[in-house]
Amino acid sequence: MKALKFAKLDSDNRTIVQVGPVQIGGPKIAVMAGPCAVESREQLLLIASTLKSLGADMLRGGAFKPRTSPYSFRGLAEDGLKLLAEARELTGLPVVTEVMDARDVELVAGYADMLQIGSRNMQNFTLLHEVGTYRKPVLLKRGLSATLEEWLLAAEYILAAGNNQVVLCERGIRTFETWTRNTVDISAIPAVKELSHLPVILDPSHGTGRWKMVSPVAKAAVAAGADGLLIEVHPDPEYALSDGPQSLTPENFARLISELGPLAQAVGRTAGAQF
Amino acid sequence: MKALKFAKLDSDNRTIVQVGPVQIGGPKIAVMAGPCAVESREQLLLIASTLKSLGADMLRGGAFKPRTSPYSFRGLAEDGLKLLAEARELTGLPVVTEVMDARDVELVAGYADMLQIGSRNMQNFTLLHEVGTYRKPVLLKRGLSATLEEWLLAAEYILAAGNNQVVLCERGIRTFETWTRNTVDISAIPAVKELSHLPVILDPSHGTGRWKMVSPVAKAAVAAGADGLLIEVHPDPEYALSDGPQSLTPENFARLISELGPLAQAVGRTAGAQF
Amino acid sequence: MKALKFAKLDSDNRTIVQVGPVQIGGPKIAVMAGPCAVESREQLLLIASTLKSLGADMLRGGAFKPRTSPYSFRGLAEDGLKLLAEARELTGLPVVTEVMDARDVELVAGYADMLQIGSRNMQNFTLLHEVGTYRKPVLLKRGLSATLEEWLLAAEYILAAGNNQVVLCERGIRTFETWTRNTVDISAIPAVKELSHLPVILDPSHGTGRWKMVSPVAKAAVAAGADGLLIEVHPDPEYALSDGPQSLTPENFARLISELGPLAQAVGRTAGAQF
Amino acid sequence: MKALKFAKLDSDNRTIVQVGPVQIGGPKIAVMAGPCAVESREQLLLIASTLKSLGADMLRGGAFKPRTSPYSFRGLAEDGLKLLAEARELTGLPVVTEVMDARDVELVAGYADMLQIGSRNMQNFTLLHEVGTYRKPVLLKRGLSATLEEWLLAAEYILAAGNNQVVLCERGIRTFETWTRNTVDISAIPAVKELSHLPVILDPSHGTGRWKMVSPVAKAAVAAGADGLLIEVHPDPEYALSDGPQSLTPENFARLISELGPLAQAVGRTAGAQF
Repeated sequence: MKALKFAKLDSDNRTIVQVGPVQIGGPKIAVMAGPCAVESREQLLLIASTLKSLGADMLRGGAFKPRTSPYSFRGLAEDGLKLLAEARELTGLPVVTEVMDARDVELVAGYADMLQIGSRNMQNFTLLHEVGTYRKPVLLKRGLSATLEEWLLAAEYILAAGNNQVVLCERGIRTFETWTRNTVDISAIPAVKELSHLPVILDPSHGTGRWKMVSPVAKAAVAAGADGLLIEVHPDPEYALSDGPQSLTPENFARLISELGPLAQAVGRTAGAQF
Repeated sequence: MKALKFAKLDSDNRTIVQVGPVQIGGPKIAVMAGPCAVESREQLLLIASTLKSLGADMLRGGAFKPRTSPYSFRGLAEDGLKLLAEARELTGLPVVTEVMDARDVELVAGYADMLQIGSRNMQNFTLLHEVGTYRKPVLLKRGLSATLEEWLLAAEYILAAGNNQVVLCERGIRTFETWTRNTVDISAIPAVKELSHLPVILDPSHGTGRWKMVSPVAKAAVAAGADGLLIEVHPDPEYALSDGPQSLTPENFARLISELGPLAQAVGRTAGAQF
Repeated sequence: MKALKFAKLDSDNRTIVQVGPVQIGGPKIAVMAGPCAVESREQLLLIASTLKSLGADMLRGGAFKPRTSPYSFRGLAEDGLKLLAEARELTGLPVVTEVMDARDVELVAGYADMLQIGSRNMQNFTLLHEVGTYRKPVLLKRGLSATLEEWLLAAEYILAAGNNQVVLCERGIRTFETWTRNTVDISAIPAVKELSHLPVILDPSHGTGRWKMVSPVAKAAVAAGADGLLIEVHPDPEYALSDGPQSLTPENFARLISELGPLAQAVGRTAGAQF
Repeated sequence: MKALKFAKLDSDNRTIVQVGPVQIGGPKIAVMAGPCAVESREQLLLIASTLKSLGADMLRGGAFKPRTSPYSFRGLAEDGLKLLAEARELTGLPVVTEVMDARDVELVAGYADMLQIGSRNMQNFTLLHEVGTYRKPVLLKRGLSATLEEWLLAAEYILAAGNNQVVLCERGIRTFETWTRNTVDISAIPAVKELSHLPVILDPSHGTGRWKMVSPVAKAAVAAGADGLLIEVHPDPEYALSDGPQSLTPENFARLISELGPLAQAVGRTAGAQF
C-alpha cells in the first residue's frame, strides 16, 4: 500500500483529529452517541442533554439517511441539520452527521462539526474528493465488504484532496453469519494502527445489530486499542424510526460508560465524564 | 419484497429495454463489448469497428473510471465520451458507459445511449434517483456484496423516480475465494427472472477476472437464461491501462461469439451476427 | 499448487473415471439422480426405475446422512445400503452414496459403486486417506468454504494414498446471500479444468436449495464444461424427510433431461438417453 | 435452536468445565498456551516450563496435525502424546491436544486432559459422537464457515452422547478479508454467552494469523467476556514447523499475560499467575 500523508501528529507520529473541544486519537476514548435518525426536536434535545450528562463526548444523528428501500423514512434533511446544530448549542457536544451527496457537502458542513461518509458511499469517489476539499474532520466508515486496503485507499482520496482530518470507523463486514447484522472485524483496530497513522473507532451498534451485544463489543474495541466509539442511543428504542433493535436505552448507555472507565484505564487511557 | 413497476412488457409481462436499435430482454442475447477504459481515439475506433464486424450489439467503454486508489488512471472524462460518440457514428453500435456522479448525469446522458451505474455506486441513492429522472436506459450493476433484495431495491430507486428502462447486471460477488477476482453468482440470473420483470445480463470479465474463464462463464449465463453479456475486449490486453488480465483479444471474442450462436439456439434464443 | 497424479487419461491427458458402465469425464454428461436420503424400499425402487426410464446414468441416495442437528433423521445406515444395491440390480444404474466415517468405508464399499465424501468431510483427512486405499471411484464434494486450492489438495490426499479414480463435485459455497441455500461457484468448473485433470460435476440441488433454480443452473454447468450433474429427485418432494424444497419431481427431471440434450450438443457433448 | 443440556452449573446456571486443577468458565481467565505442533522433546519441555513460570494455566500442542496438503508435516502422533504427558508431569499443566479420527479417541484420551476437535472436524459427526462417549472435557473449535447455530448444534452432538464437559472456541471465520488469516468474530463471545451455558474461549493466533495482532485481539476477547484464551507460543517462531508467523515468543507472551491482569480485573475477573 502507498504511504499515507498526515497532519498534526502526537509523539508516536499518530494523527490526532480535533473536533471542537474533542480529540480523537489522544488518550481519551471519544464516545459519539445519539439516535440513528433525527426524528423530532423534542426527541433530539432530550436525548442530547441526557447523553451530555452521562458523559458522551459527541452527538451523532442522521439527517440524510441512506435506506435500502426508496419507501423507507429517509431523514429530515436540512431541518434535521438545524436541530442538530440547536442540540450542540444546548449541550456543547460537537455534532457528527452523514453526507450522502457531493452536492450537499457545503450544506452539511455549514451545520456539522464532522462529516460522516457512510459504508455504502465508502467508494463514492467524487464524494470522497469533495469532503477532501473542505476543512472539516471526516468520519469514514468501512464499506460492507471493503478490504482494509480499499478502506485506507478511500481515506487516501480525502487526504489527497488536502484534508488530513480523517477518522476511520469499523462497523462490521458482511459475512455468512446471520445471527448478527454484520460481523465486527475486531482485528481491523490493530491493523489500522499498524498500517496507518489515522485514528480508528468502532460502531458496535451497526456492527452487531443487537443492543445486548453493543456493550461487550464496545469494551472489546477499547481493549483492542480503538480511539473511540459510535453508539446508537434512543430514548425509546421500540418506537425508533430506524435501527431500534440495536439502540441502547439511556440506562444501558450509562452502564456502558461507567464500565468503560476502568477498562480504558487498564489499557492506559481514559473514558467517560471526568470530575 | 415490494412489487416492481414496469414499462413495455412482452407477452410474459417481462420488460424489454430498447437501446437504439438493440432490444435487451427479447429473443436475442445482447452482447455489449469493448475496452475497460477509453484510452485513445485510435484504440477505440479500431476496436469498435472490429467488434461491429464480429457481431457485437453494443459498445462499452469507460470515460469516468472508479478506481480503488486515487493515483490510478481515472479515465478521459468528457474527451472519452466524445470518442465513444464518434465510435457510435462510425459503427452504429449504441454506447453504454458509466456515470459516477449525480452532477455528471446530464453530461454523460448527452453522449451515451445507456447509463451504467457501477457496483461501488449501487447504493449511491442520490445517483440512482438522478438517473431515474432521465429518459435514458440504465444498466445497474450489482454491488460487490449486495443481496438480491438490495439490488432489486436499488433498481426500485430508479423506477420510483420514473425511469423504467432498467437492465440488471450480475458481475460477481465478493467471497473468500481468491483464485477468481469475484465469484459469479450464476443463480442470480434465474433469481432475477423469478423475482423481477427486468432483463438481466452478466459481466463475466469482472466476474472472473481471468480471460480464460470469460467464455465458459459467458456460455453458462446464456444457458441459465441471461438476456445479454458485458464483455471486456482489448486489442492488446497486455498493454491495457486497466483490467488487461480479464480482457479478451478480438480473436477470442470472435470465437466466443461463434460459440454463442448454437448455445443460444439450444435455449430458444439467438446470438451474434445474423445474415 | 503441487502437480496432481493421474490414471487413465484421454487424448488431452484428462482423467476419465469409470463407474460400472458409466464414464465420467468422457463425451457424455453423467447424470446422477435420486432422493437425498433413502427413506424406504418402495420409495427407492420406484424412483430408481423412473430415473432409469428417464435417462439418468447413475443412482444417488444417502444411507448415512450428515445432519446439522443430532435430532434430525440420520439415514437408514446398512439397511439403506442394501436397498441401494437392490435398486442397482433392478435398474442397472451404478450407485453413489456417502461415507462419513473411516470405519465404515469397507461396509459402504461393499454395496456402492462410488463413494461420496460430503462437504463437511472434505478436510476429514483420515477419511480421505481411507477411501484412497480402496479401489472404488470417489466423488469428492467441495467444502462449504473451501478454496479451490484446498479442494484440489483434499483430492491429493486420495490420490496420494493410491486411488486415482476421483471426481470433483462443486456444490455451492457459503456467502452472505441468503436467497439461495449456497452460492454456486460456476467458475469452479473451468478452474478445475485448467488446474487439474480430474473430472468435475455440479450439484445444483444443494448449490441453490430451490428446485426452480435447479434446471437453469444445471444447464449453466453443462455450458461451462461440467462432466456431470448430481441432482435430487423425489417422487413427492413435499413429503421428503430431507431437502424437499430443492428436489425435482420426476416430471421436472424429465423436462431437464430433455433440455440437456441439445445444450450438450451445442458444446460438443451428449446427454440423456440415447436410442 | 434447541435448548442445551448441562452439567455442573455456577450460580447463574452456567457450566464450569474442570480440567485437572483448572476451571474454565469460572472467575479466572484460563490461558492455554504452547506450540502449534509438538516438534521435539527438548522444544516441548523447554517451552512448557517457561509457560508455567509465566503464568499459563494449560499446555497446548498438536501431536496429530490436520494439514491442507498431504505433503506437509503432520505431527509426531503417539510420540507427541507421550511428550505432552511428560511435559504435564514436569510442570503440572493440564494438556489439551487435537484428536482427528474417531479411532484415535481412546489413544489420545489416554494421554490428554482435554480433547480438542479442530475446525475442519466441527461437523465430523461420528467424531463428535465418539468424544461424547468419553469422560474427558472437550474443546470444540468453530468451523471455518460455521454459523453460531451449527456450532452449538455440533456441541449438542457431544452433549447428546452423554458428555457435558464442553468448551467452545472461536478461532476466526472465513471472509473476503485477506490481511488476516481469518476474521475473528468477536460477537461470538457474547452470543455464546446468551445462547448457551457453555464456556467460550478465543484462539487469537489462528484467528488473526499475525503475531502482532494476537495481544490486542486476546485483550478484546477478555473484555467481551471470554472465559479463556488459546495461544500459540514458540521459543523460536522463525523456525517453527508450522504457524510460525502467528506464534508469540515467550517474551511477548509474558507481556500479554502481564497486561491481561488489570484488564481481567476491570471486567470483574482474574488472569495470570496469582501470588
